[in-house]
Amino acid sequence: MIEGDEIQELIEAVHEEFVPLLGEGKVADYIPELAKVDPRKLGIAVATTDGGVYSTGDAAEAFTLQSVSKVFALTLALGKVGDGLWRRVGREPSGTPFDSIIQLEHEKGIPRNPFINAGALVVTDVLLSGYQPRETIGQILEFLRFVAGDDTIAIDPVVARSETEHGYRNRALANFMLGFGNIEHAVDLVLGVYFHQCAIAMNCRQLATAGLFLATGGRVVHRDAGVVSQIRARRINALMLTCGQYDGSGDFAFRVGLPSKSGVSGGMLAIVPKVASIAVWSPALNREGNSLIGSLVLERLANRAGWSIF
Amino acid sequence: MIEGDEIQELIEAVHEEFVPLLGEGKVADYIPELAKVDPRKLGIAVATTDGGVYSTGDAAEAFTLQSVSKVFALTLALGKVGDGLWRRVGREPSGTPFDSIIQLEHEKGIPRNPFINAGALVVTDVLLSGYQPRETIGQILEFLRFVAGDDTIAIDPVVARSETEHGYRNRALANFMLGFGNIEHAVDLVLGVYFHQCAIAMNCRQLATAGLFLATGGRVVHRDAGVVSQIRARRINALMLTCGQYDGSGDFAFRVGLPSKSGVSGGMLAIVPKVASIAVWSPALNREGNSLIGSLVLERLANRAGWSIF
Amino acid sequence: MIEGDEIQELIEAVHEEFVPLLGEGKVADYIPELAKVDPRKLGIAVATTDGGVYSTGDAAEAFTLQSVSKVFALTLALGKVGDGLWRRVGREPSGTPFDSIIQLEHEKGIPRNPFINAGALVVTDVLLSGYQPRETIGQILEFLRFVAGDDTIAIDPVVARSETEHGYRNRALANFMLGFGNIEHAVDLVLGVYFHQCAIAMNCRQLATAGLFLATGGRVVHRDAGVVSQIRARRINALMLTCGQYDGSGDFAFRVGLPSKSGVSGGMLAIVPKVASIAVWSPALNREGNSLIGSLVLERLANRAGWSIF
Amino acid sequence: MIEGDEIQELIEAVHEEFVPLLGEGKVADYIPELAKVDPRKLGIAVATTDGGVYSTGDAAEAFTLQSVSKVFALTLALGKVGDGLWRRVGREPSGTPFDSIIQLEHEKGIPRNPFINAGALVVTDVLLSGYQPRETIGQILEFLRFVAGDDTIAIDPVVARSETEHGYRNRALANFMLGFGNIEHAVDLVLGVYFHQCAIAMNCRQLATAGLFLATGGRVVHRDAGVVSQIRARRINALMLTCGQYDGSGDFAFRVGLPSKSGVSGGMLAIVPKVASIAVWSPALNREGNSLIGSLVLERLANRAGWSIF
Repeated sequence: MIEGDEIQELIEAVHEEFVPLLGEGKVADYIPELAKVDPRKLGIAVATTDGGVYSTGDAAEAFTLQSVSKVFALTLALGKVGDGLWRRVGREPSGTPFDSIIQLEHEKGIPRNPFINAGALVVTDVLLSGYQPRETIGQILEFLRFVAGDDTIAIDPVVARSETEHGYRNRALANFMLGFGNIEHAVDLVLGVYFHQCAIAMNCRQLATAGLFLATGGRVVHRDAGVVSQIRARRINALMLTCGQYDGSGDFAFRVGLPSKSGVSGGMLAIVPKVASIAVWSPALNREGNSLIGSLVLERLANRAGWSIF
Repeated sequence: MIEGDEIQELIEAVHEEFVPLLGEGKVADYIPELAKVDPRKLGIAVATTDGGVYSTGDAAEAFTLQSVSKVFALTLALGKVGDGLWRRVGREPSGTPFDSIIQLEHEKGIPRNPFINAGALVVTDVLLSGYQPRETIGQILEFLRFVAGDDTIAIDPVVARSETEHGYRNRALANFMLGFGNIEHAVDLVLGVYFHQCAIAMNCRQLATAGLFLATGGRVVHRDAGVVSQIRARRINALMLTCGQYDGSGDFAFRVGLPSKSGVSGGMLAIVPKVASIAVWSPALNREGNSLIGSLVLERLANRAGWSIF
Repeated sequence: MIEGDEIQELIEAVHEEFVPLLGEGKVADYIPELAKVDPRKLGIAVATTDGGVYSTGDAAEAFTLQSVSKVFALTLALGKVGDGLWRRVGREPSGTPFDSIIQLEHEKGIPRNPFINAGALVVTDVLLSGYQPRETIGQILEFLRFVAGDDTIAIDPVVARSETEHGYRNRALANFMLGFGNIEHAVDLVLGVYFHQCAIAMNCRQLATAGLFLATGGRVVHRDAGVVSQIRARRINALMLTCGQYDGSGDFAFRVGLPSKSGVSGGMLAIVPKVASIAVWSPALNREGNSLIGSLVLERLANRAGWSIF
Repeated sequence: MIEGDEIQELIEAVHEEFVPLLGEGKVADYIPELAKVDPRKLGIAVATTDGGVYSTGDAAEAFTLQSVSKVFALTLALGKVGDGLWRRVGREPSGTPFDSIIQLEHEKGIPRNPFINAGALVVTDVLLSGYQPRETIGQILEFLRFVAGDDTIAIDPVVARSETEHGYRNRALANFMLGFGNIEHAVDLVLGVYFHQCAIAMNCRQLATAGLFLATGGRVVHRDAGVVSQIRARRINALMLTCGQYDGSGDFAFRVGLPSKSGVSGGMLAIVPKVASIAVWSPALNREGNSLIGSLVLERLANRAGWSIF
C-alpha cells in the first residue's frame, strides 16, 4: 500500500495525465449558475487515515457539493432517527435516472435509496423534524465544518437561489411523495433546506478531509472524535457503492471498485476503507451525469494504488 | 482477522444459532424437483486463501447451483471473448426481479447485467460459439471440477430435465433477445446448456473451494495456477456486490458487505477478498428469492469476523 | 328510436331497477368534502336534440363536476388555440390510472390525452394565456351557464378549497410538466383555476342540457346558436369514447357504446350523437374511479334504447 | 347519406387524389416476404348493407391479412367460448406498441385486448381447444370464405413460412403467457395457427364483403344468415374503435371516427355501422405501423361521406 510522498507523486502524475483531456464532456446547465463554471478545472485531494492530506491542481478552489452533500445529510439523519429512516426510504439501486419519478409511483412514494433525489428529499424532511429550516441548514453546515475541520465552509447564495428557481422536478417529486404521506413538512420548506444543502461550497482538500470518517470506521481523525459507529460507517459506504453514481453505479464499482458519491457540479467523493478519503472535482459531465474526467481520475488512482475494495 | 480453529468455532456457533429458525421461508416450487428438498437443511463452509477449508452442518450434501453457476459461466465467457462481452450485456443493477422482461424491451434486448436470467442466457450464448451444446456443458463442468479440485462433480439429470420442462419464462427471454439479435444460437440449444449449467450439483465444501479464486486475485490455491487476472477477479466481485442478489443486492451489501451470488436452490457464495470464500446452503427462500437463513448466516459471519469489505 | 314519453318511462324504469343497489361501491375520499356526500343518491336526466329534457330521481340536486368539467374546458381551449393544442397534449388512451405520472416521464412531459389529470392541467394552462386566473374561471363558468341555459350555476367554494388543500398529486404533475416546459404559467395559478373548474356544481338536468351541443354537431338548441363546428363536436366525442373513462374506457365502450366522461363525484355525461345527451349522478365509485351505479345505468339505458353508436 | 353511384364516384375521386402520394412511408420489412411488395399499390372497396360492392384501384389484388385477421379470429373465438374469453384477455387500449411485452409482466400474463399480438395469441389458443392445428386453420379459413362469399380465398404459403421463421417476438410473448398459465397449448402449435391465419390472402373486394356482418348487426347479407348477435357485432366494433390501430387508436378515432383494424401488410378494414364495410390496401406504413395512405384515404372517405359514428 502506498503512503505519504508516494501518494503525492501519484496524484500529480494522474493530474498531469488527464489535464490534456479537460474540456471533454458537458457542464450541467439545468441550473444556470452551474453552467458558468470553467469546464477545464481539475482538483484532486487525498486525506489518509494517518492524518495526511495530499492535493494537486485546483484542489483549493471551492465548488458546490450538489448531490455529494447527500452522504453527509444521510449521516446526520441516521444519527437523528436511526434505522427508523429505512421505513421511509429503501436501500436498493434504482435502475433509473437520478430524478426519475416512475419508481415512486410503482412503489407508492418510497424512494429506492437515499442518494437519488427523491430519497434525499425524504432525508431532508427527516432532518426538519423539530427544527426550523434555518436551524436545519445550520446543522448540516455545522456538521460539514466539524468533519472538515474548517469553520469557513459556507453556502453559495447565488447557486442556492438559482436552484430554488429551477427545481421543478424536485418540487414534483416532493409533492408526489407528500400525496403518499412520505413527506411530513411543507414542500417549500423541504426544498428550501435541500437546495441550500446542495449549494454548500467546499474545495477538494476540505471534502476529502470531511469524508475521512467513512474510511476510519466513524472517527474524525483531526478531532479525535467519533461521529458514527463502525457498522454505520460501513453501511453508508455500502450504499455509496451500490447507489452513489445513480444508474452508473454498477459500472463505477466494476471499473473503480470504491464507494463514492458524485454531484452535478463535477465533484466526487470516494472512500478507501481503512486507508483514505479522496475528493476529485472536474465540472464537465458524462452521459450519466457524473464527472467525466473525475471518474477516469478515480479509476486511474484506484488501479495504480491498488485501492479497490474487491 | 480470525484464523484456523477460530473460523471453525465461529461457523459452528453460527450454525447452532440458526438451526432453531430452520423451516421458515419457502422452498422454490417453480421447478418441481426443487420443491422436494428438505427446507431444514443448513450447510456452511469456508475456504481460506491459505488453503484451509472449514465446514459444518450439511456442508457435504450436494445441491444444484442454479444461479450461483452464473458466476462461473461469466468467468469462462470473459476468458473466451474478454471485454467484448460488455457490448451484449450491461453492468448495472436492474431494479427489477431476476426474470423480468420489462427492462429488455426498454433497452432493446441488452440485459442489465450477467446475473439476471436474461444476462446469463447471453453469457451461455457466448459460450456456445464454436462448440456443440454437449461440449459447452462439458467445458463448464470441467471448469468447476478444476477450481473445486474435485472430479466427481456432476450434473443432476432429474433437475436438468425438470428445468427444461418448466422454463417458459427463460424461453420467452431468449426469444425476445433473439428478436433483437442479441442471441446468436438456436433458443433450444442455449436453454439446453443453461438448464444443465443450473443443474450442476455441488456441496458447500466444493463450492467454497471453487469460489476461492475470486478471493485470491485469480489464483486456484490447491492447483497453484491462475484462472483469471487480478483485475478481472476484482471486477467479478464488484458485479457480485452490485447485482448478485437480484433486487435485494443493495440491502445485502448494506447488511453483509460482501460480494455474493445466490441461487433458488438456497445456495449462496460469498467472497472475502484476500481472505476467504464462503458457501452457505439452506433451501427456504425469502421474498426476493434468496436463501432466508443463508442470508442471515452470512450477515452474522461477516459481522462477527469483521469481514465486510467496507 | 324511442322518443318523448317513452324516454321518461325508460329512465324511471331504470331508476327503479337500480335504487335497490344504491350504497354499493365507495365514495371518493381523497377530498374530504366529497366523502361527506350521501352514497345513495341517484339522478338521471336526458336532453334530446329536439329540445326535450327528461329526468328522475335526484336529478335536481347539484354535485360538483370534477373531471366531467374537462370536456367543457377542452372545448373552450380548442376554441381559443385550435388544433395547436395537440402539440402539447396527445389523443391516445393512456393505459394507466387518471393521475399517473409514469407516462409523462416516458413521453417527456406531453400528456397522453386531455382527459387524464396531466392533460387537463395543460388545457387549463392554455386557457390562462392572456387572462388572470379569476377571469379564466369566469370564462369557464360563463361557458357552462351558456350551454346549460342557466345563469345560476356556481362554484362550490368549500369543495374548491378542499381540493386546493389536498391536491398534492396534481401539484406534482404540474411541476413535472413545468420542468419539461409544457406548463407556461405559475403552478399555483394553474392549480387554482383547475380546482375551481372541478368544483363547479350542477345537477343532472343542467349537465344533460349543457352537453347537448356535442349531440347536435355543435349547436346549442335552446339558444339556437353554434358553439363549435360539427367536425370538432365529433372529435370531442371520439376523445370521450377512447379516453373518457380513464383506464376503463375500453370496457365502457364495449358495454355501453357511447362517448362519455366521468368524475370522482360520481357524475357522468354521455352523448348519443344526433339524439341526446345523458347525465347520471351516483356518488359511489367502482375500482376504476367511475360511478358504479352510474355506469350500470348508462349501460342499461343504452341497451334498452338502442343508443349504442356501434 | 350517399348511396350507389355516388359511392363509386367518391372512392374514385379519393383514389385519384391519393395516387400522387403513393410511395411515401415504409413497407414492413420484419418479414422478408412483406418487404417485396410494391409500395405504390392502392386498392379501395366498399360493401354496403343493401348488398352493393364498389371498388377501385388495386381492389382485386390479394394481400395477406396480417393483423386484420384478428377481427375474424376474435369473432370465431367468441362464438366458441362466449364471454368466458374475457377472463383471459382484457378490453382496454394498451398504451404501448403492438408487440410490447411490458404490460404482460405488469398484468400477470393477461393481454390488454385481443387486437395486440399477445391477445391475438390467446384467441388462437382458445380456437385450438379440441382441434388439431390443421383443423383450426381450416375453420378460420372457412369462416372467411363464408362471410366473404368466396371459396377461392387461400393462405399464402410463402408468407406463412416466412412469418414462422422470423416470429421471435411472438414466440417470446407466447412463452411468457405460458409461464403465467394463460396459454394452454404447445407454443409451436399456437404460433403455427397464428402465422397461417396472418397469411390468409384476400383482396379489398373480398375483405369489404367479409367485414360487412359487423355493419349489419351480425347478418351476412349475401348468405341471408346471421353469424353473430347484434350486441356482439356492436361490441366487436367498440373494440375495433378503442384498440384496432394499436397505440394510434385514439388518433384514428379522432380523425376518422370509424371502428377499424389495420395490418402490417397495409390492409385496413373499417366499419360504418348500419351502412357499409370498407377495405383499403396500401403497403407503405406510418410510424405506428398502420398503412400511411390507407389511413388518409379512410379519413377522407369518412369526412366526405359523413360516415363518422360520432
